[in-house]
Amino acid sequence: MKLKLLFSCLISAGITLPLFAQETVDPAIVQKIREEGLNHSKVMETAFYLTDVSGPRLAGSPGLKRAQNWAVNQLKTWGLANAKLEAWGKFGKGWEVQKDYAAITVPYYHAIIAIPKAWTPGTGGLIKGDVVVVKADSAAELDQYKGKLQGKVVIFDTKPLVERSFKVDAARYTDEELAEMANATMQPATGRRQPDANSPQFAAMRKLRAFQTTLRAFIHDEKAALILSQARGTDGTVFTTNGASYADTAKAVAPELETSSEDYQRILRLAKAGQKVELEADIKTQFLTDDLQGYDVVAEIPGTDKKLKEQVIMIGGHLDSWHAATGATDNAAGSAVMMEAMRILKAINFKPKRTIRIALWSSEEQGLFGSRGYVLNHFGDPKTMQLKPEQAKLSAYYNLDNGTGKIRGIYLQGDSAAGPIFKAWLEPFKDLGATTVTIRNTGGTDHQSFDAVGIPGFQFIQDAIDYGSRTHHSNQDTYDRLVEDDLKQAATIVASFVYNTSERAEMIPRKALPKVQPAN
Amino acid sequence: MKLKLLFSCLISAGITLPLFAQETVDPAIVQKIREEGLNHSKVMETAFYLTDVSGPRLAGSPGLKRAQNWAVNQLKTWGLANAKLEAWGKFGKGWEVQKDYAAITVPYYHAIIAIPKAWTPGTGGLIKGDVVVVKADSAAELDQYKGKLQGKVVIFDTKPLVERSFKVDAARYTDEELAEMANATMQPATGRRQPDANSPQFAAMRKLRAFQTTLRAFIHDEKAALILSQARGTDGTVFTTNGASYADTAKAVAPELETSSEDYQRILRLAKAGQKVELEADIKTQFLTDDLQGYDVVAEIPGTDKKLKEQVIMIGGHLDSWHAATGATDNAAGSAVMMEAMRILKAINFKPKRTIRIALWSSEEQGLFGSRGYVLNHFGDPKTMQLKPEQAKLSAYYNLDNGTGKIRGIYLQGDSAAGPIFKAWLEPFKDLGATTVTIRNTGGTDHQSFDAVGIPGFQFIQDAIDYGSRTHHSNQDTYDRLVEDDLKQAATIVASFVYNTSERAEMIPRKALPKVQPAN
Repeated sequence: MKLKLLFSCLISAGITLPLFAQETVDPAIVQKIREEGLNHSKVMETAFYLTDVSGPRLAGSPGLKRAQNWAVNQLKTWGLANAKLEAWGKFGKGWEVQKDYAAITVPYYHAIIAIPKAWTPGTGGLIKGDVVVVKADSAAELDQYKGKLQGKVVIFDTKPLVERSFKVDAARYTDEELAEMANATMQPATGRRQPDANSPQFAAMRKLRAFQTTLRAFIHDEKAALILSQARGTDGTVFTTNGASYADTAKAVAPELETSSEDYQRILRLAKAGQKVELEADIKTQFLTDDLQGYDVVAEIPGTDKKLKEQVIMIGGHLDSWHAATGATDNAAGSAVMMEAMRILKAINFKPKRTIRIALWSSEEQGLFGSRGYVLNHFGDPKTMQLKPEQAKLSAYYNLDNGTGKIRGIYLQGDSAAGPIFKAWLEPFKDLGATTVTIRNTGGTDHQSFDAVGIPGFQFIQDAIDYGSRTHHSNQDTYDRLVEDDLKQAATIVASFVYNTSERAEMIPRKALPKVQPAN
Repeated sequence: MKLKLLFSCLISAGITLPLFAQETVDPAIVQKIREEGLNHSKVMETAFYLTDVSGPRLAGSPGLKRAQNWAVNQLKTWGLANAKLEAWGKFGKGWEVQKDYAAITVPYYHAIIAIPKAWTPGTGGLIKGDVVVVKADSAAELDQYKGKLQGKVVIFDTKPLVERSFKVDAARYTDEELAEMANATMQPATGRRQPDANSPQFAAMRKLRAFQTTLRAFIHDEKAALILSQARGTDGTVFTTNGASYADTAKAVAPELETSSEDYQRILRLAKAGQKVELEADIKTQFLTDDLQGYDVVAEIPGTDKKLKEQVIMIGGHLDSWHAATGATDNAAGSAVMMEAMRILKAINFKPKRTIRIALWSSEEQGLFGSRGYVLNHFGDPKTMQLKPEQAKLSAYYNLDNGTGKIRGIYLQGDSAAGPIFKAWLEPFKDLGATTVTIRNTGGTDHQSFDAVGIPGFQFIQDAIDYGSRTHHSNQDTYDRLVEDDLKQAATIVASFVYNTSERAEMIPRKALPKVQPAN
């Protein structure tokens, strides 16, 4: 899930859900789906291949390519039609880590936990350098470091993180929290909300970002050997980000390691106390420029109803991840669940009226690019609201990208007319903890790309478990974090939603078409 | 704190505390001590030098030597007398890590979090090897691996750890827990309790240990390149142990890395699924055999009362640590607090009646060796209960070794007569959360060495914070974990206890002399 969009869409107003309407659910089919999904699951095997076997799946990386190829092949093996990679547009450079070693060597030896920032270069072999603390908030303050950084290891005078938490890492939704969501009222959102570009906060952020660019350029030009920046996270958990652009035209930067807060602060304390600190590092990263295109995985169960087979239901999640682990909860979990939902429907030999399509997106982490590109190619342009014929034929898009937690319900994304339908569809899954329909929006992931062109796009409500505290974008987002029972439950519920969407007389009701967004 | 002794001493019976007795406390002195300890503290500076500047302080290591030398010098600087290193007896080889790098290279690159087990050798440069899963519970089962391990990376088929916790990492004692301790009844222990060597559990443990030795010898003889063993801990936290004997006569073993559970399980899952997994590693460790002696740091504030100055009060904690971090909570915290208590007493220009001595032990982690050796040299032999004259002159020994948490009270270690005295001494510190006197024993640290020869030896009750979950023997036991306010509080209270012990008309009342323990 892309972090910065997550909280941007929570806006509330005075719209309430319509009363509960009649919506039929076939209990025999639900039973079949439950039997296959809960007792004959392959979701953990799928997750194993997407994580452990494929490795990290940064956009454009060989790891993502391995996972994409495996997924296409696996979907074919399960009997899905039209399984393929589909280019969505130009992304940029691929990148992967090929060596990652760094240690304090003076005043004593200590290997540090540190991860190359995505799209940063390597050190060109083993380097050794003294640590220099750089403390600057403006270009003028950088002058004092001129001529002093060559071959050095640069560290910034950054405050320590909160040292320990007396709060739990992992949690599930309480009944009270779910009730609060169910009772919420909210103005339906029309497309993505833009931040106010004229606000003082926005100006401050722009200034900070501009200085960060100046700072990195200065350090690169001064030929520093390495930059250490403090990672979010404690206890050996390191959250990662990118340190340079993936664009093929990106400017050169210095090698940069996102360093565990404990190691970072130790080095900083020593250096600030006037102790000599020397580091050694051997970082090798590889850029891949052969193919700058981005790709999505797509596959189908074709519709069988003469009239309705032109209509489509889509499900998906992003397959790309960050690079320090194997993106198990973000978002092999969602990808494996969506693949498993398709497998369940094939396994029960379901012949849908409408066509069912799965898509596993890429470059979600850089800005929902895979789904946005796909939407642009197939459905319409949210900037102009020029729509294509396919837009009218897609009943709904269901997304899963909030970690390993089981489904507790669904966000209506303001589509109040869908509420009674989903409420009825959740009925058979009360015993599995899925009960809540909320009018609220949630952001930060690929259903927004559909919502932006007027297609009903939904993300399920999922228990957080330790998504925020430990796994989301971190070096700890590994297969171990997956909760098997939760993934089985999610796949079962998604399969049932897809079944119902396919067989329903009508398509899922839509909100009013979003207004054209003013240009940024 | 040494883990395996920790819970061995909790035995309860029907002895109750005597009624509260009169014990005077000088409020003016308490105020002076509080002012110095709470408002002019140097405890964090001391901790910084013991951790960040000295580095890991494994028994016999250069890091411990640096910390010991710094402590001796610092205690001299503060005006203490007789500050020196004192040999306590033969320990064994020193050891330190000089390079620690390991990564998965096939099926893709991923640097792992892994720490050499203490006293294991290095790899002799960069090695690469395929992973082989060894699954054996008996010597006979090892036959299948004969001739198959040369140059390989051995991993054991070990179950995954619990993956995540819905419990908090860090906690303080609740009022209820403290009340329960205060109201506890317990048979006073006389020396260390021995486990029943004839129990089935003991036999099973002996068998398991014997097989582990056979297994390690087999792997070494088969010339495996490296062993991976699964570390306790999750989220990047790795708890460390020793992997070989520190004895100068120890048998050779293979290099062995205690590997983070997430990395370990990823490698194991891949290998068990039949995927080729290759690792590379470059481990360098250094053995130091020039001086096999172990040393304690000691220093004094000499007594000034003609009659009483021959009598002594001791305070201490162990200065040695494990090797993957800087042993901040285990036990730079206790060492810094005890040093700070001495500094406070010098700063307020206290001229004690009795002599006050600080000792910072070594080799505690291997079996309380530093304090046991000191006790043997000065006070008596717990095996024969042959006592030396100094035994009769040591009023009490106070220890601190349960992490960074503030003092909540004191364990009487069965010395019920000391209860009313300590109760009175804690009165002025109620506002700082120190209230509880419990008849109970606590184990696993150096006060036991004194208790074993009939000297009143006490450990304070401390809040655990994240000692058990994160820091105790782990790679995360760094300066960052220290809670400044808690260390200030502890030093203030210890200084006050020392003051009172020194000025009290009588020595601290003693339990009956322990019976001679049967040989193990």
